[in-house]
Amino acid sequence: MKILVLGSAAGGGFPQWNCNCPACRRARAGDPAARPRTQSSIAVTAGEGGWLLLNASPDLRGQINANPALHPQSGLRSSPLDAVISTNADIDHVSGLLSLREAQPLAVYATPRVQRVLAGNSVFRVLDPALVPRREMVLDTPFRPRSADGRELGLTVEAFAVPGKVALYLEDEAAGPNFGSVAEDTVALKITDDRSGTFFFYAPGCAALPGWLADRFRGAPLVLFDGTTWTDDEMPRLGAGAKTAARMGHISMSGPEGSIAAFAGLGVARKCFIHINNTNPVLLDDSAERREAEAAGWEITFDGMEIVL
Amino acid sequence: MKILVLGSAAGGGFPQWNCNCPACRRARAGDPAARPRTQSSIAVTAGEGGWLLLNASPDLRGQINANPALHPQSGLRSSPLDAVISTNADIDHVSGLLSLREAQPLAVYATPRVQRVLAGNSVFRVLDPALVPRREMVLDTPFRPRSADGRELGLTVEAFAVPGKVALYLEDEAAGPNFGSVAEDTVALKITDDRSGTFFFYAPGCAALPGWLADRFRGAPLVLFDGTTWTDDEMPRLGAGAKTAARMGHISMSGPEGSIAAFAGLGVARKCFIHINNTNPVLLDDSAERREAEAAGWEITFDGMEIVL
Repeated sequence: MKILVLGSAAGGGFPQWNCNCPACRRARAGDPAARPRTQSSIAVTAGEGGWLLLNASPDLRGQINANPALHPQSGLRSSPLDAVISTNADIDHVSGLLSLREAQPLAVYATPRVQRVLAGNSVFRVLDPALVPRREMVLDTPFRPRSADGRELGLTVEAFAVPGKVALYLEDEAAGPNFGSVAEDTVALKITDDRSGTFFFYAPGCAALPGWLADRFRGAPLVLFDGTTWTDDEMPRLGAGAKTAARMGHISMSGPEGSIAAFAGLGVARKCFIHINNTNPVLLDDSAERREAEAAGWEITFDGMEIVL
Repeated sequence: MKILVLGSAAGGGFPQWNCNCPACRRARAGDPAARPRTQSSIAVTAGEGGWLLLNASPDLRGQINANPALHPQSGLRSSPLDAVISTNADIDHVSGLLSLREAQPLAVYATPRVQRVLAGNSVFRVLDPALVPRREMVLDTPFRPRSADGRELGLTVEAFAVPGKVALYLEDEAAGPNFGSVAEDTVALKITDDRSGTFFFYAPGCAALPGWLADRFRGAPLVLFDGTTWTDDEMPRLGAGAKTAARMGHISMSGPEGSIAAFAGLGVARKCFIHINNTNPVLLDDSAERREAEAAGWEITFDGMEIVL
């Protein structure tokens, strides 16, 4: 099983279009220690069938261009991308679907709640329903994703709810402190290679690591985990927004309640942070926070990173 | 007045994600005569206020990164982009709005019909209505676009209907041969620099050049015009789709009914093709069609091209 990190940054990317912070300025200036990153998305293949895309970011067109494995390999029009799963309805996880038009067969998997958002937004009709079947993904029910024409990809996927929050633009202020979020709003995936049996977890959004979830990750060969912020209050502290990470549905990396502490001792063979916000100092190769995360056994994903399991 | 061509290609860009034609292969291989192009969008400034974006393409995040004039210049979060106009509801002209989130003030101008599409698609709610006013643009009524906080940009804009077609995903098969298109569906813009009085036309989609429209363009200092295809039947002939250019709402460049013939003798000082499809051979610097277009006085726009009027 091969995993390609197409995008490693959180919503907005790095640099973010309207952010003038020192880190974004370094990224724009071409500083090699502040490598630009596009918005989070990965692609997976079992090596035989085509590729399964996990989340379709707004940067998808450029991500496909940047990764030769995803270029058309035959015929006049074709794509090695057979299917897409959107883990939630965040703009950075669904709007890339708009770049997968041009009469190309493709299967789109999402929970019923996300499918309702797609159905309720006419812009997604650019994906011709005759060519792009939309399939519901049921939580806690492993399934084998297939291409539009029914070919298996050699992978088994299980989606399960993790602590989180509904997409910003779907928030319902009147619904109380969780803004109308339901379990389906933040979904992690377990992806298993059918032939070898090896597997990994992909959890680009996760607000906390309760005991049952820690147990689930325990001993896994690989976890790609929510790396949005270093501290819970880093956005308000930088003046880059009023919201804490918790308010946005994300656990921070550092601190006694953070993900680095929560994963310590879980025996996960390979721990990688993904969905990293432009305010998070681990993006900088020369930061103390990068050294601290790496010392704790974490890798900081970057665009174009390949992982073979 | 300065114009920046952010993207010069039609929907799908060049190369197109699923296109394996010889030209797209050359672009992917880094052939200097097959320069990659993003989806059509330009930015304009009168030099004093900020920038006005004409159409928000799916490639907008990368386009902003590629153009230093559009980077934030001050404060922690800011942008020189003050306002956006979407000339129609095509995915390649509105979906970039989704990349202009992150709590940044901005004014969004569009016709009532396009505004209804934006209002009817909840994804666009990521643009906080408290920061991003949506303003209606009335056809045939010159107006001065303003920033979200009311600052004038030193430009006057007039939108007017040109022959065309409704966006693909809004087509109504039952409505007859024009698929439910109305005048507002394809809009050209006349942009005037308030100080110098100079002006240009921006018409990235246009299906024909009847006499009244030719008269309107006559003698203009600059026209940026629909360069989607070279011949009307090039997509079906290449096997890249069943539709002719006319069926997609675009006039071809060549032939007795084409735009090159229609503009001959109109005395337009500078004629530039934009919104160029990946099937159009003028994209290739070494093509006979490129030489023919240039011999007829046309320029083929490219990403990053600057025009000063």
